[in-house]
Amino acid sequence: MDTESNSNALPNPLRGIIPPMVTPLLDRDTLDAAGLERLIEHILAGGVHGLFILGTTGEAPSLSYRLRYELIERVCGQVAGRVPVLVGITDTCFTESLNTANKAGDAGAQAVVLAPPYYFPAGQAELLEYLEHLTPELPLPLFLYNMPSLTKAVFEPQTVKAAAQISGIAGIKDSSGNMVYFHQLQSILRDHPGFALLVGREELLAEAVLLDGHGGVCGGANFIPKLYVDLYNAACSRDVPTVEALHEKVMQISSAIYSVGHYESSYLKGLKCTLSCMNICSDFLAEPFHRFRQEEHDKIQRYVKELGIALKR
Amino acid sequence: MDTESNSNALPNPLRGIIPPMVTPLLDRDTLDAAGLERLIEHILAGGVHGLFILGTTGEAPSLSYRLRYELIERVCGQVAGRVPVLVGITDTCFTESLNTANKAGDAGAQAVVLAPPYYFPAGQAELLEYLEHLTPELPLPLFLYNMPSLTKAVFEPQTVKAAAQISGIAGIKDSSGNMVYFHQLQSILRDHPGFALLVGREELLAEAVLLDGHGGVCGGANFIPKLYVDLYNAACSRDVPTVEALHEKVMQISSAIYSVGHYESSYLKGLKCTLSCMNICSDFLAEPFHRFRQEEHDKIQRYVKELGIALKR
Amino acid sequence: MDTESNSNALPNPLRGIIPPMVTPLLDRDTLDAAGLERLIEHILAGGVHGLFILGTTGEAPSLSYRLRYELIERVCGQVAGRVPVLVGITDTCFTESLNTANKAGDAGAQAVVLAPPYYFPAGQAELLEYLEHLTPELPLPLFLYNMPSLTKAVFEPQTVKAAAQISGIAGIKDSSGNMVYFHQLQSILRDHPGFALLVGREELLAEAVLLDGHGGVCGGANFIPKLYVDLYNAACSRDVPTVEALHEKVMQISSAIYSVGHYESSYLKGLKCTLSCMNICSDFLAEPFHRFRQEEHDKIQRYVKELGIALKR
Amino acid sequence: MDTESNSNALPNPLRGIIPPMVTPLLDRDTLDAAGLERLIEHILAGGVHGLFILGTTGEAPSLSYRLRYELIERVCGQVAGRVPVLVGITDTCFTESLNTANKAGDAGAQAVVLAPPYYFPAGQAELLEYLEHLTPELPLPLFLYNMPSLTKAVFEPQTVKAAAQISGIAGIKDSSGNMVYFHQLQSILRDHPGFALLVGREELLAEAVLLDGHGGVCGGANFIPKLYVDLYNAACSRDVPTVEALHEKVMQISSAIYSVGHYESSYLKGLKCTLSCMNICSDFLAEPFHRFRQEEHDKIQRYVKELGIALKR
Repeated sequence: MDTESNSNALPNPLRGIIPPMVTPLLDRDTLDAAGLERLIEHILAGGVHGLFILGTTGEAPSLSYRLRYELIERVCGQVAGRVPVLVGITDTCFTESLNTANKAGDAGAQAVVLAPPYYFPAGQAELLEYLEHLTPELPLPLFLYNMPSLTKAVFEPQTVKAAAQISGIAGIKDSSGNMVYFHQLQSILRDHPGFALLVGREELLAEAVLLDGHGGVCGGANFIPKLYVDLYNAACSRDVPTVEALHEKVMQISSAIYSVGHYESSYLKGLKCTLSCMNICSDFLAEPFHRFRQEEHDKIQRYVKELGIALKR
Repeated sequence: MDTESNSNALPNPLRGIIPPMVTPLLDRDTLDAAGLERLIEHILAGGVHGLFILGTTGEAPSLSYRLRYELIERVCGQVAGRVPVLVGITDTCFTESLNTANKAGDAGAQAVVLAPPYYFPAGQAELLEYLEHLTPELPLPLFLYNMPSLTKAVFEPQTVKAAAQISGIAGIKDSSGNMVYFHQLQSILRDHPGFALLVGREELLAEAVLLDGHGGVCGGANFIPKLYVDLYNAACSRDVPTVEALHEKVMQISSAIYSVGHYESSYLKGLKCTLSCMNICSDFLAEPFHRFRQEEHDKIQRYVKELGIALKR
Repeated sequence: MDTESNSNALPNPLRGIIPPMVTPLLDRDTLDAAGLERLIEHILAGGVHGLFILGTTGEAPSLSYRLRYELIERVCGQVAGRVPVLVGITDTCFTESLNTANKAGDAGAQAVVLAPPYYFPAGQAELLEYLEHLTPELPLPLFLYNMPSLTKAVFEPQTVKAAAQISGIAGIKDSSGNMVYFHQLQSILRDHPGFALLVGREELLAEAVLLDGHGGVCGGANFIPKLYVDLYNAACSRDVPTVEALHEKVMQISSAIYSVGHYESSYLKGLKCTLSCMNICSDFLAEPFHRFRQEEHDKIQRYVKELGIALKR
Repeated sequence: MDTESNSNALPNPLRGIIPPMVTPLLDRDTLDAAGLERLIEHILAGGVHGLFILGTTGEAPSLSYRLRYELIERVCGQVAGRVPVLVGITDTCFTESLNTANKAGDAGAQAVVLAPPYYFPAGQAELLEYLEHLTPELPLPLFLYNMPSLTKAVFEPQTVKAAAQISGIAGIKDSSGNMVYFHQLQSILRDHPGFALLVGREELLAEAVLLDGHGGVCGGANFIPKLYVDLYNAACSRDVPTVEALHEKVMQISSAIYSVGHYESSYLKGLKCTLSCMNICSDFLAEPFHRFRQEEHDKIQRYVKELGIALKR
């Protein structure tokens, strides 16, 4: 694979819908390889603008490094340059982030994605220094990933602004759910038009793009990619009535699919269960989580029907 | 004053810009009466749709009850029915909330506003029961006020939905800054079109109204009310380019005026300091806060000039 | 009543068991006057070293000012100088804290107790300034009250050290549950032997007094005051085996009486329910809480029996 | 090495001082091998009862797996059965915990130590299930590690009680700093006398052991192991005056060595800096942290002198 030309292919800024792919598993250390193939084709058929693997939705921290590396190989091989592949390298250890990034570079991915190291909460100066040390050693452009509820550390706006000056840092995915923060980033980065601002909660995609954000990393795009692509396009063309109608559909999915059982992990469980109901891939979750029990599974099945989500034959 | 007719005058749902008025003070227990008069007229001249007193921005918890009651009298007297007056009755004590509500009713206000009791954090069932006990005893319609960062308790969407069935509860002001929550409320209350959904962070006004929210409670409307009214109108008419331009102005104010000194109280101090620089009212803050020192005051003065905020002669 | 002589009677430092008295209520705004009398005599009969009213256990923030003032009058009148009475004046408003303190002074109390203002979270410099402004205006010595889980602000060790220099501040009650903090206070205040260090969680009384703390503010002393007095005495005389046996009894009470129903308010509900089972006073709780339902009441009744808590005839 | 006999050598319950060893580093991925040797001998010379590597103090999450495995080999080889070696296997991934445990077993360690997986916060049922799945696959006895400030999940007392029934779980190290929790564990585990209850904050060692805890995992024992061993012995023999004197010394170390610079990481930086001032090992810290700058280093040097900490020639 010609990494060079793929890497050149990364838009500046990156725009559109970049689904955070779930990782189909047969058991805690075995990929569901057939499910993975179906999932990738299902997502790409929806017209998405990239694919993000090994993020939170991909359960990356729960997977062994061996399995993470296997996943990178398989996904890059199958996508084969059709869209940019972004690979999560978030870790508590600098060296392991670098190891994963090198696997991503070798496999032909287009970018890597990093949340703050998440065991020890670093201060802002330490976070910036971390980026200054890491970025020059990376084989691919880097996207920041703001996810304070799970990492305990936030990339504060001034830190993002400083990071945007570092050669090799191409944007940020904000999953804080905090639109005041997102607008602060937009305001402070007005003079960095090539720095991508992507929103990580699909419930906020409509407003993020209406108000000039570059796109979204939407979990629901694992199963209905077209909905998010259509919403993105409507927002880009400022067709507010269409945006509203599609946004309401996104909220229905969120209230139904992601809210069964009221676990912290309801989002992840609901996502994998839906994909399983659609016959796309297995619903196995890596520890510390587990798939839905029968009763919750039945609820999801009902929602899939009600929401008119198409099944794979 | 004819309370009856005023009360009837409350729109259903309440829409538009309802500024959370600061409380002008000469010292910790003395109103700046002349400043108060100027402030009210300045705000009303901006075309706002209501006035909310004794909220967080009004420093209500820091004021003695004597002073709160005096403020209610003076504001209702001066507004004299030109716009609806909403009075904050948030308290840790049921009986004191009721006492304040009765003062508001007697003075001719149009509604009262209640955040959860904020010393002991109640559970959701307890919050709903609180509303069921309190609402029938109130002389005026009630708006809920969601402010979890200061009250420690959130009105969860299902609780708001249950509250919307209680006769006398007319809407909610959400100051959580969490737009996913706001959209969940919109989704869950789709069949209560008369229940007002107002957003409490002005940085989120653009998207809240573009996506069918009813309006905002914007602190900046104390000093430039017209900006927020114009933004509201542009969003209602779905004029996205104008919304964007005005939203960017709102973000500039937020980054400048509310961010001097990086205190938890920077917002309040910046707001009162700006009003003082404009010669509208005193910048005295009730304990535990204090007005800006000279250096910070000078910064605000500079911002007032740069942002083109007009001074009162 | 001769306030002067009572005030002189406050030990330096204050030592021993100072129960945080519950407030017996017939309904949300009516004291259970007969229950209050029985409760005071029951507590004093246990040999306690003081009485703290209008704290968290006393539900002070949930009570109207009218009722708080009535309580101060009644308690001071009945105690009549037998032990020092400490009155909680914690408030969000400086002026109201002062009003309550003046009532306490007039009624013949010996000291007042103040947690940080709890709506707006003040910074440490602001907290210290608050104390510098308030203390000179108070008619009685002041104890600080550290209760970060409910007030959102902590009195940091350096702030307490600075406060210990202010004339009129006599000690601190630490209810953080954080013994590292308590030991830091002890270490930093080694040269202020007259500054009382009292621990607010009864589960920590044993170690606090064994390691030279001055005493405790123990909720369980509402119903078995002698247990805590005995534990205090054993710890003072470094009789470790007796301390251990009594400490284990304290832990049993905590695991039983305060853990029914797993509410945030289980402690308060369990305390009042126990007093009601003992025929001492009503178990009515002010909003936002309510008394235990029958099933939970029955559990408490069983625990009262099992733990061998004596009933009042 | 005969693992069987070592494993038999693990006391039941494990008691005493088990220092959480720092990991001496030359750079982010290179052990300071000579420093490591000196450090181990220095600690063992203090009479400690075990050695815990790859915990929080050992910066385990910041180290590559390669380096972790190398450390396990070197430490087990050098300790050579003189005291039990406990190896941290905390991870976000089940399989990687198991991999590390197998390295520990092969190298001749006596036990492994596990905090909850710390990216996704598991519920209590999920945590218990995690232990039920993991424990049977482990080659060595397991100690739980409660560290909620860094892992976001707490092992609640009922979960610990259930875990104590699982064959192969030998105790818990509680680093919550919450002595109410510690006493709840003691109370609930009264009928499991072989289950070790160790306290993780050295500031709480005195009271934990005085009140029948089994020992402590004290960071300061990296540089003055004898202080903590003496304190442990005095507490076991209930010599309260000696306990008090040594506890005060522990508090002085905490206020001095661990409080330079007021970073989240002041403890770690102070610890490594002290060891460097004593000529024991390098003060390099793995990212996201870095060693103290000169000014802070000078402060530590001064404290080392003032506290009378002996230097290595």
